[in-house]
Amino acid sequence: MISKEDIQNRMIQTVETVRKTNPMAGSITNTVTINLVANAQLAVGGSAAMVYLPDEGEFLAKAGGATYINVGTLLPIYEQTLPHVAKVLHDTGKPWVLDPVAIGIGSLRTQLLLQFKEYKPDVIRGNASEIIALAGLWELEGGTDLSNVRGVDSTDEVNAAKAAAVELTKWTGGAVAVSGKTDLITDGSVMIFSRGGSHFMEKITGAGCSLSGVVTVYATAASPLIAALTAAAVYNLAGNRAEKMVDGPGSFQIQFLDELHKATAEDIANNPFEMEEV
Amino acid sequence: MISKEDIQNRMIQTVETVRKTNPMAGSITNTVTINLVANAQLAVGGSAAMVYLPDEGEFLAKAGGATYINVGTLLPIYEQTLPHVAKVLHDTGKPWVLDPVAIGIGSLRTQLLLQFKEYKPDVIRGNASEIIALAGLWELEGGTDLSNVRGVDSTDEVNAAKAAAVELTKWTGGAVAVSGKTDLITDGSVMIFSRGGSHFMEKITGAGCSLSGVVTVYATAASPLIAALTAAAVYNLAGNRAEKMVDGPGSFQIQFLDELHKATAEDIANNPFEMEEV
Amino acid sequence: MISKEDIQNRMIQTVETVRKTNPMAGSITNTVTINLVANAQLAVGGSAAMVYLPDEGEFLAKAGGATYINVGTLLPIYEQTLPHVAKVLHDTGKPWVLDPVAIGIGSLRTQLLLQFKEYKPDVIRGNASEIIALAGLWELEGGTDLSNVRGVDSTDEVNAAKAAAVELTKWTGGAVAVSGKTDLITDGSVMIFSRGGSHFMEKITGAGCSLSGVVTVYATAASPLIAALTAAAVYNLAGNRAEKMVDGPGSFQIQFLDELHKATAEDIANNPFEMEEV
Repeated sequence: MISKEDIQNRMIQTVETVRKTNPMAGSITNTVTINLVANAQLAVGGSAAMVYLPDEGEFLAKAGGATYINVGTLLPIYEQTLPHVAKVLHDTGKPWVLDPVAIGIGSLRTQLLLQFKEYKPDVIRGNASEIIALAGLWELEGGTDLSNVRGVDSTDEVNAAKAAAVELTKWTGGAVAVSGKTDLITDGSVMIFSRGGSHFMEKITGAGCSLSGVVTVYATAASPLIAALTAAAVYNLAGNRAEKMVDGPGSFQIQFLDELHKATAEDIANNPFEMEEV
Repeated sequence: MISKEDIQNRMIQTVETVRKTNPMAGSITNTVTINLVANAQLAVGGSAAMVYLPDEGEFLAKAGGATYINVGTLLPIYEQTLPHVAKVLHDTGKPWVLDPVAIGIGSLRTQLLLQFKEYKPDVIRGNASEIIALAGLWELEGGTDLSNVRGVDSTDEVNAAKAAAVELTKWTGGAVAVSGKTDLITDGSVMIFSRGGSHFMEKITGAGCSLSGVVTVYATAASPLIAALTAAAVYNLAGNRAEKMVDGPGSFQIQFLDELHKATAEDIANNPFEMEEV
Repeated sequence: MISKEDIQNRMIQTVETVRKTNPMAGSITNTVTINLVANAQLAVGGSAAMVYLPDEGEFLAKAGGATYINVGTLLPIYEQTLPHVAKVLHDTGKPWVLDPVAIGIGSLRTQLLLQFKEYKPDVIRGNASEIIALAGLWELEGGTDLSNVRGVDSTDEVNAAKAAAVELTKWTGGAVAVSGKTDLITDGSVMIFSRGGSHFMEKITGAGCSLSGVVTVYATAASPLIAALTAAAVYNLAGNRAEKMVDGPGSFQIQFLDELHKATAEDIANNPFEMEEV
């Protein structure tokens, strides 16, 4: 198994590379949290661009270092855009991150998430319910049917998604991140638990969506596992720091963005995590 | 007439039930203020989910405790989504809240607002001009034609909308809230005036849209009248408190979200209001 | 050449007229930064309204004092809306502001920006790469082809866009603003350099989009040149002031909105700028 120190060195390198190169990471994401996604991506040193149309998505997929697809607030055009862009990403070997938010709501979302199976996202990030439901939709072990999902909130604990997360990585060859009180990140061979965060994370909209956006920024410069872990670590660190300085969700979001910006590479690598073999 | 103490007890119960149960309130709302709507809903203890497509709207209408429809930034798909969702809400007897923002702009908005007459929203919230224009569009007394409306801002005082508000409640059987310097809330039998707020409310976008979103959260746990009053009260309280702590509209919005989160049920119930029989 | 004092007096008049009259400036703009555009427009004293549909855009074009078109996050309906609204603006002689953000990405954007040539926007605001690319697309001198543009970020210095900016004003008869470390504003006869701002401007999404929105608000009350300069000045002033009070991009955005609101007309007119004849 890869050593903890090795992982931390790679995290440091990832953070620093991103800050030095300001990599472009395009997104197709929901209108509720699109502004926070962009601001979080900028705060960690990336560059953001968002589009809706098929050929624009293809442009970003080819021009960017990695691409983010979030299936929230689907528009009719997504029926064409999302499979096309996912296929381009897959065929060109460019890393991409899938956030299967609100899986189980509506027929287009289900259809799109089914199509994505073939295009093997490099990182899948969701809460426990979403990860379990996606594994179920893709007919992998550890999954269940979609009836278990309530809107955009998780009804399952992170640990309940362990098997589903591992099976998903076996299919994609990438990593899966399960967000919760403790975050679980796995590439199918190692399982990492990242700690920290804040109870205010659930009191602002877009903590999860923007985390996936930051995973995407790091995926321009790191393996799926390291990208997902580095993003979880900076979120847990910044959330923890911000919580101590504020007393409400409005201030929390602002302070959180500041802390994303201020966190050093060493701080991020030293944010508590444990690892075990799968 | 219901007593003031009775009303205050119901307000306390509403606030506490929402904080305890974290009820889901789905929305179809405009892209300008969608993030603030969600964050305000979360700040008072609700859960938010936003969609655009017909079957997704139907899902949320059936799964949520109440649903919010705001006709800002209309997209072509709304022609199918909004009447379908409003019909589902009406047929299933689920409470829903209508914000007729920018009534009078464009043919689709007029067509949709006309169709909603049949589906009787449980709460209608708008500024005085919008309430008067909606009564006019529905050919109720107290209304006028649409020529009086200027974009999204009100050109009428709250009191000018009294007759329109009452006539609308007679038609819907629900409540109407008219936002202004003092807010007017009526169910056709009692008329309540809620006081407080801040001059900064007009200097941020989405104060009205997000207020309607919070009405929707409370409508999962209370009658239309109590839901509308409780939302007006927490907005007036939080606005008043936030104004004293800031000196600009940027800080105001952040502090306002914090105060929404921190306000106790008793504080909200004790925010000044007067009532009279209609 | 117009004197500096003359320009400053006109800037003061513009700021005060806007604060007194609260003019309506409609926008068709991208979903990423739409909230910041509206809040910035409100902070300087304007009124904001955003739409997507053709007849709604026409309504705002005719009802508002000036209109803003930003080609970010294009939706399919924009193929009909944008040329229609631009034509209405041109035919009615109403001022309008174009932000050619992300020029070069996708076929619809290129097609729309080509169509706009005929409708001569009164102000064009972009970064250096965008201004150069637009001049190229319109086959004016000083332009280049589109291959030089990277997403939404500029790869050129402001001075490199001088010739393109002047040629664009010769074609439109209006003004062009090139944003960068120092902002360049020209109407083809005078070239003005506005100084100030903050390094945090690049760490928040929408600094440019919202600047164009504020240009539009001022264009309801001033010539294209004065509108563009006044907006650049208040942005440079507020950015500079905000930067001194914060240590991260989250706080910066909030403080920046506060400073937009608090800046006096005299402060704005006295923000450093130099001018030279073209």
